[in-house]
Amino acid sequence: CQFSLFNFGGTKKLDLDSSDTWMAAPITDLEHLKEHRDDMKCQVEALIMRIQAEVCQALEKEELEEGGKKFQIDRWLREQGGGGITCVLQDGTVFEKAGVNVSVVTGILPPNAVQQMRARGKKMKGESLKFFAAGVSSVVHPRNPHVPTVHFNYRYFEVEDEDGEKQWWFGGGTDLTPYYLVEADVIHFHKTLKKACDQHGKQLYPKYKKWCDDYFSVAHRGERRGVGGIFFDDVDEPSQAKCFEFVKTCADSVVSSYVPLVQKHKKDGYSYAERQWQLLRRGRYVEFNLIYDRGTKFGLYTPGARYESILMSLPLIARWEYMHAPEPGSKEAKLTEVLKKPQDWV
Amino acid sequence: CQFSLFNFGGTKKLDLDSSDTWMAAPITDLEHLKEHRDDMKCQVEALIMRIQAEVCQALEKEELEEGGKKFQIDRWLREQGGGGITCVLQDGTVFEKAGVNVSVVTGILPPNAVQQMRARGKKMKGESLKFFAAGVSSVVHPRNPHVPTVHFNYRYFEVEDEDGEKQWWFGGGTDLTPYYLVEADVIHFHKTLKKACDQHGKQLYPKYKKWCDDYFSVAHRGERRGVGGIFFDDVDEPSQAKCFEFVKTCADSVVSSYVPLVQKHKKDGYSYAERQWQLLRRGRYVEFNLIYDRGTKFGLYTPGARYESILMSLPLIARWEYMHAPEPGSKEAKLTEVLKKPQDWV
Repeated sequence: CQFSLFNFGGTKKLDLDSSDTWMAAPITDLEHLKEHRDDMKCQVEALIMRIQAEVCQALEKEELEEGGKKFQIDRWLREQGGGGITCVLQDGTVFEKAGVNVSVVTGILPPNAVQQMRARGKKMKGESLKFFAAGVSSVVHPRNPHVPTVHFNYRYFEVEDEDGEKQWWFGGGTDLTPYYLVEADVIHFHKTLKKACDQHGKQLYPKYKKWCDDYFSVAHRGERRGVGGIFFDDVDEPSQAKCFEFVKTCADSVVSSYVPLVQKHKKDGYSYAERQWQLLRRGRYVEFNLIYDRGTKFGLYTPGARYESILMSLPLIARWEYMHAPEPGSKEAKLTEVLKKPQDWV
Repeated sequence: CQFSLFNFGGTKKLDLDSSDTWMAAPITDLEHLKEHRDDMKCQVEALIMRIQAEVCQALEKEELEEGGKKFQIDRWLREQGGGGITCVLQDGTVFEKAGVNVSVVTGILPPNAVQQMRARGKKMKGESLKFFAAGVSSVVHPRNPHVPTVHFNYRYFEVEDEDGEKQWWFGGGTDLTPYYLVEADVIHFHKTLKKACDQHGKQLYPKYKKWCDDYFSVAHRGERRGVGGIFFDDVDEPSQAKCFEFVKTCADSVVSSYVPLVQKHKKDGYSYAERQWQLLRRGRYVEFNLIYDRGTKFGLYTPGARYESILMSLPLIARWEYMHAPEPGSKEAKLTEVLKKPQDWV
């Protein structure tokens, strides 16, 4: 199996030991990361650097096998503090647009972010709140309509209020957006995520599976963006170390949940009509991301945001047809039914 | 001039007299509209029915001259009260997607709409507020990148608060989104709008031109959606009759401001690269509409909203390229400069 190169769960190798494979120099100096390896901020940064590298390398392998393109790597710094590394593979053979973004950002929370966090139950005094946010975030839009789109995001947040009171939490998830429903693929995807969750508690997968279905809702259409996966936020129990291990296991399951689906379908034939259907579905993807997605909004409303990194999640091409409805009984209609009524896959 | 068929300003013919040319039966019974011709709600409905018909007929003429398609007409009713008539011409020869929508809707304002209106200074008591909203709204996306996109919307609002206190106001505007800058075209467009405004007060065009530049801002990119036009809201002075006459004059200037640009450029040749640039710009159009546009948000958050009519404003195809920047000195860069710094055109 070609995945044996990577550390899928199990091994206890330090993320820092993979630094020679990272896509670029980390935002925080490598020496600082090594010296403060017990600081959660540094642990998270090393983790997301490794995950970014592993995902990019796994995708690039699939792409280059078909004679395609390599990731473009942009390391950027933010005037207000922090920065990121954005890797994008655009207009390739297998991948029409694939982005894997790491960001490590510090600053003062924008007022609407404070409002949102308080609405979610966070107790934070004052108006000027210092924050640290680090995460890896990715969307992969393949060219072939038989290969699903995947999205994942794993992040860590620290907020310090005016009294110096510190809070931290983790968030994240992985979810799949197929254009055609192949049940075996969806089952493989969910099973892989469940296996990752189960290592940290049997209650986690059902809870985070449902959260995912609820979150990725294109409300005005009464349908989900895709066939779900897992989604969680505000995770701060039972301990920082255990939360980190959970997030690490989830992030480590991305490649094995998704890349086999790319391998299975990347050479499938497809018709013009199937491509048009894919582009229509990508229009719905754009609707979710721009109207509802909290991460996109938080990003775009953050002063000095690097909008190119935030909007890399948008597909290369999307289509909107007035009053499009799939033929009853068609493969397209079969997908739509599942999007309207989420199912249990494992 | 082929526009002499239409009532451009000047004439004082009643909108109701044009009912035989309307695209469908009005939402309110025609007899009721005739009997209550002094009620502003009825006057507005007759106006928007006439404007819809005139715009559709003018566009269809340009389309059919090139052997293209006709408008599809959908009359729909809303369970919660009211309805609309949506006319869409999709995948045509001249027009890739053109929508002209009339809606006449009654109901209870959704909470976030109440919040927004109060934030704009409206004083309304209570939480359960009855509203009436009628408007015509249109977006025209031509196929040829040398023909600009136009958007217009003219609307009338009535809200009744818990004490039975009634408020009314008009809003609207017309704005242009070219893909390539032809100064003479932009000047023609703005001059036509200025002439319409000037009939009702010399102060109106400068005020509403600036409002338009401010409103149609794709904030995260620091650029405007297009080269502007006019935009206004909460217009309730000096009298209801005068406000209506102003809005009528503006709505009557849509065809003469825009259709000559279609005629001038619809047969222009264009390259593959020019088409790609148009699709990229359409991606920015989608960003504005889904992230910032108040009308889209109000629409999508209104229970029972007909999302197909709201989202008809989205282009048939849009494109997002990571880190795209036009060649310095190119025609594409020239447009971008104007979008970053709005200009005076008359």
